[in-house]
Amino acid sequence: MSKPVVGIIMGSQSDLRIMKEAAEVLDELKVAYEVTVVSAHRTPLRMVEYATAARGRGIQVIVAGAGGAAHLPGMVASLTSLPVIGVPVKSSNSIDGWDSVLSILQMPAGVPVATVALDGARNAGILAAQIVGAADAALGQRIDAFKESLKVKVETTAKDMETKGWRSAL
Amino acid sequence: MSKPVVGIIMGSQSDLRIMKEAAEVLDELKVAYEVTVVSAHRTPLRMVEYATAARGRGIQVIVAGAGGAAHLPGMVASLTSLPVIGVPVKSSNSIDGWDSVLSILQMPAGVPVATVALDGARNAGILAAQIVGAADAALGQRIDAFKESLKVKVETTAKDMETKGWRSAL
Amino acid sequence: MSKPVVGIIMGSQSDLRIMKEAAEVLDELKVAYEVTVVSAHRTPLRMVEYATAARGRGIQVIVAGAGGAAHLPGMVASLTSLPVIGVPVKSSNSIDGWDSVLSILQMPAGVPVATVALDGARNAGILAAQIVGAADAALGQRIDAFKESLKVKVETTAKDMETKGWRSAL
Amino acid sequence: MSKPVVGIIMGSQSDLRIMKEAAEVLDELKVAYEVTVVSAHRTPLRMVEYATAARGRGIQVIVAGAGGAAHLPGMVASLTSLPVIGVPVKSSNSIDGWDSVLSILQMPAGVPVATVALDGARNAGILAAQIVGAADAALGQRIDAFKESLKVKVETTAKDMETKGWRSAL
Amino acid sequence: MSKPVVGIIMGSQSDLRIMKEAAEVLDELKVAYEVTVVSAHRTPLRMVEYATAARGRGIQVIVAGAGGAAHLPGMVASLTSLPVIGVPVKSSNSIDGWDSVLSILQMPAGVPVATVALDGARNAGILAAQIVGAADAALGQRIDAFKESLKVKVETTAKDMETKGWRSAL
Amino acid sequence: MSKPVVGIIMGSQSDLRIMKEAAEVLDELKVAYEVTVVSAHRTPLRMVEYATAARGRGIQVIVAGAGGAAHLPGMVASLTSLPVIGVPVKSSNSIDGWDSVLSILQMPAGVPVATVALDGARNAGILAAQIVGAADAALGQRIDAFKESLKVKVETTAKDMETKGWRSAL
Amino acid sequence: MSKPVVGIIMGSQSDLRIMKEAAEVLDELKVAYEVTVVSAHRTPLRMVEYATAARGRGIQVIVAGAGGAAHLPGMVASLTSLPVIGVPVKSSNSIDGWDSVLSILQMPAGVPVATVALDGARNAGILAAQIVGAADAALGQRIDAFKESLKVKVETTAKDMETKGWRSAL
Amino acid sequence: MSKPVVGIIMGSQSDLRIMKEAAEVLDELKVAYEVTVVSAHRTPLRMVEYATAARGRGIQVIVAGAGGAAHLPGMVASLTSLPVIGVPVKSSNSIDGWDSVLSILQMPAGVPVATVALDGARNAGILAAQIVGAADAALGQRIDAFKESLKVKVETTAKDMETKGWRSAL
Repeated sequence: MSKPVVGIIMGSQSDLRIMKEAAEVLDELKVAYEVTVVSAHRTPLRMVEYATAARGRGIQVIVAGAGGAAHLPGMVASLTSLPVIGVPVKSSNSIDGWDSVLSILQMPAGVPVATVALDGARNAGILAAQIVGAADAALGQRIDAFKESLKVKVETTAKDMETKGWRSAL
Repeated sequence: MSKPVVGIIMGSQSDLRIMKEAAEVLDELKVAYEVTVVSAHRTPLRMVEYATAARGRGIQVIVAGAGGAAHLPGMVASLTSLPVIGVPVKSSNSIDGWDSVLSILQMPAGVPVATVALDGARNAGILAAQIVGAADAALGQRIDAFKESLKVKVETTAKDMETKGWRSAL
Repeated sequence: MSKPVVGIIMGSQSDLRIMKEAAEVLDELKVAYEVTVVSAHRTPLRMVEYATAARGRGIQVIVAGAGGAAHLPGMVASLTSLPVIGVPVKSSNSIDGWDSVLSILQMPAGVPVATVALDGARNAGILAAQIVGAADAALGQRIDAFKESLKVKVETTAKDMETKGWRSAL
Repeated sequence: MSKPVVGIIMGSQSDLRIMKEAAEVLDELKVAYEVTVVSAHRTPLRMVEYATAARGRGIQVIVAGAGGAAHLPGMVASLTSLPVIGVPVKSSNSIDGWDSVLSILQMPAGVPVATVALDGARNAGILAAQIVGAADAALGQRIDAFKESLKVKVETTAKDMETKGWRSAL
Repeated sequence: MSKPVVGIIMGSQSDLRIMKEAAEVLDELKVAYEVTVVSAHRTPLRMVEYATAARGRGIQVIVAGAGGAAHLPGMVASLTSLPVIGVPVKSSNSIDGWDSVLSILQMPAGVPVATVALDGARNAGILAAQIVGAADAALGQRIDAFKESLKVKVETTAKDMETKGWRSAL
Repeated sequence: MSKPVVGIIMGSQSDLRIMKEAAEVLDELKVAYEVTVVSAHRTPLRMVEYATAARGRGIQVIVAGAGGAAHLPGMVASLTSLPVIGVPVKSSNSIDGWDSVLSILQMPAGVPVATVALDGARNAGILAAQIVGAADAALGQRIDAFKESLKVKVETTAKDMETKGWRSAL
Repeated sequence: MSKPVVGIIMGSQSDLRIMKEAAEVLDELKVAYEVTVVSAHRTPLRMVEYATAARGRGIQVIVAGAGGAAHLPGMVASLTSLPVIGVPVKSSNSIDGWDSVLSILQMPAGVPVATVALDGARNAGILAAQIVGAADAALGQRIDAFKESLKVKVETTAKDMETKGWRSAL
Repeated sequence: MSKPVVGIIMGSQSDLRIMKEAAEVLDELKVAYEVTVVSAHRTPLRMVEYATAARGRGIQVIVAGAGGAAHLPGMVASLTSLPVIGVPVKSSNSIDGWDSVLSILQMPAGVPVATVALDGARNAGILAAQIVGAADAALGQRIDAFKESLKVKVETTAKDMETKGWRSAL
């Protein structure tokens, strides 16, 4: 596979059940990526290294997922000028996801994090592809085809429901 | 000025008091942009036209701000394959900002919106520049310089507080 | 069956488990309806077509259900002058339902959505019937009979509990 | 003026600062209405009388506004088969409006209330007109014209901002 | 059994799984009560009758439980000068219980409801006994004994944990 | 004045601006009361003394108001078998009042607190009177007259609005 | 084992499933502790005794866990000058944990409680060790080793994921 | 003054209006401290240096205040084995303070932050003194005297209110 342009990191291996969806959609869109674990709180120096070296290694976007007091996306954003996408993961003792959502979203002026929905790793992958695709016409076309496929799927469902009746769709 | 690469839109002219910060920071970073009003609810067809034509006109990122049941960022994202940055604006009858935050953040799988903090238009502008800057080395350097200036400002403040005492900093 | 006067739409087939209750109560009240899937985010142009054509096809009320950043009810309301009833559906990654409730409820001045309770599709169907029934005396009587049946059911339950004791009602 | 078809009621005179917007938009749309105070908690029997007599007096829709533990809209809905629109009013000791929103929105199956945004009395008036307009072609056209005027206003603003620059619009 | 002095009512038979705890603790405390179903929304006139007649029938306190947009406790309080205790029940489509809590708690000045914890029917029963016991010395002593028994149970548990070690208490 | 039967206490003198409304309505209803400051956190032993001695001094109900992590009502309830009414006060650094509401409302089984609305001291006073009035026919009649006066005030307002028009009532 | 320097208390034996994690981590760090049940609401005088005697018995830090209207940590803090760590426990009828979090966190000026995450007893134990370790060099080194072990575990996981691929880590 | 044992840091100079209260109470308690600005997001490497060097410089406790997505306290805690006290500051675009509270409180297992109330810097100072005072008998006595003074102030207020009447205390 070609050199990774998207870096997918997560605070804990237990976040992989969510974060794998970013990897999967990047596979579908044929965007090269790397995946690893970087914990803001247990390996802060590893985080500094990862974030400061990413651009030099050819990474164009970082996707960072974390739960609870989720500091990883914002801290990585503070350490690089690459765009950083944050995925709020709902952890086991989460207060309904509010903790990770607000810890990632409410960054102070100067250091943005592009936040997606709670557990929204699939959307993080798509957004990463859109960012990379801004300067890559072929990728742009793959994203267009991807969006078209979503549309066709809904239209097929709708047609079925209209012709066969909603009871058949339960 | 050169051809706009960032499109800044907002649901109502009253959002400009917030959204102007996106324009201002893009001015600082020397990124060309355009600004207009597009209401998802009062001009839905104008929104369709704006979103579907943006890429063809050379826009690379759209920054969309809206308050309350804030549908503009998500609807624009559904109509383009460009990355869309959403700014939740706290409107006058807002329920503490939760309405615009959740209406923008919680997009379904397939259609991401890069959400920033409540009233975080300045960060939306910086994020737009980071995305454009992925393929523009000179812009990348301006962003690095911008981040450096933030750091220097804090260090100066800190030095002052340490040497003159915290009471002098009140 | 006669020509539909209520249009029931939902953002995804997965919402049908909730939205079917609107259809069922309209069956009970003998109000003709149609059901289909219209996704604001995956089929935005289909949504424009559906909403702008509805009145012309004889639809008098639209019931629209969606989850997460639920834009379907509000966007449909922006595209028609028919009354639109919104059903906030609790999606799988919902933040306790707040996202769909606020995305539907907090519409800006000018474009109302008649919002019902979280997962309240049955009430949406009843409300649609009440709206249609404003100009249909026979339907009005069927709604009165429906309300009477609710009352009788409670009274029977109460009588049982009073005469047989509350332990028998567990 | 012709016989009222919309009944606007509120739990307290202090709600009039919000609820007047329903009256004003009905004036704009030339829909006849009546306005009075009916308190669920201080005049419960008056509420029973108002709600049970409304249909017989020619009322087609009831708009009810209340704050705090806002029981008026739901109780009126329990006492009539007319459609009832609820306006959550943010009272002085409100917990951010959540109390009136949830007290009105979360009605049990069988008794719907068409809830609008917090302090959204203007939208309640428009929704009432839409409901009455379902069977009144001339009113339907007035609503269409009203929506058209909202669109034109946005387009004018947008044109101005585009031609004169966003700074002139601050 | 003697004539009931506490009236336990609930909006729906499905609330009995919670509300039975009020009955059970009144049995423990030997306070006579009655239990029935009174729905604010499905049997509003039955509610008026129940509330206005209660004092005359010898009832001294009313315990009312309801879920969702829980209007029963507040409406009963508006119809009687007896103290009314409200139990917020968490219903199946509840927004985390906030709806019933706020619908019962946030009563306007003039019409109090003594609200207890979410699903706190046991405490509602104890509170009812405390109110009746204000003028009943024998009951007062039974409540004191009840509180003493709670204390003894904790002390026994604590003693066990201290002597046998916490692992034995898991 | 006669011997106090209601004890009004508050965690801090700054709560008096709210808690005075309990005293004022008890004055209106001619119920004798006492007022003092008892801080759960700064004078815990004074709190123990106050709560354990109250019944012996003739107090029949305690009204306790506090803000933030509001422990006073619940701790007093744990120390007496008298009914305790809790008033959640919105303190200066309150998180929208949720802190005091939940700290008072969510008592564990066995130790109820009769909670009223945020800053609802007036209702606390009325509830205290209702509890005392259970065994005092003359007081019962004063409460009935009080409720009647609330009703008359609403009816007068309503009559005015109906005859003079709503604009005159603004 | 040596004399306890940390006192772990909880409001109910049912909290032990959470609170045991504080004990376990103190075992790992070789810090002597004691564990018992002290209920603020059912054994208030026992609580007074425990808190006032703790310092004299050699306890240096108290870890207190409780759920719902969680008064134990704050009340103990009011009765001792020792540092008190509060663990908000999510009880069975909790409103998503907000009740215990806010009851413990929002203490008034003068009486701090060191609050940890919802159900965060393990962190409470570590924090207790850090406080004791401030004056105990050997313990300080054990805590450093503990933190190092957390780091190594993450690094091993990361290395595995990088070399074997993320799919192998699911 | 003697060598600082408490380090007070904040994310921005604008937090000083809150954080100064920590300094002031440490002055009252005669505990030596230092104050400076350390921004997690704008000066991440400065933060690493500050946190890793603190223990070596004789600091025994760190008090860290920050608003919004408040990462400073948790990141500092990840970089030192000293106890860290976090002060959630309510920033200008805060979502009611929830963002800073949850970003600081909800730390993952292994890295505790001792969180105090929103804007609770005064309590953070007291808590720092309590921690230092664990091994400093003279400081312990000053804290006891401080708590005594809080008690006396309440008792004086209470006495006044009881003897002069509550109206004189308004």
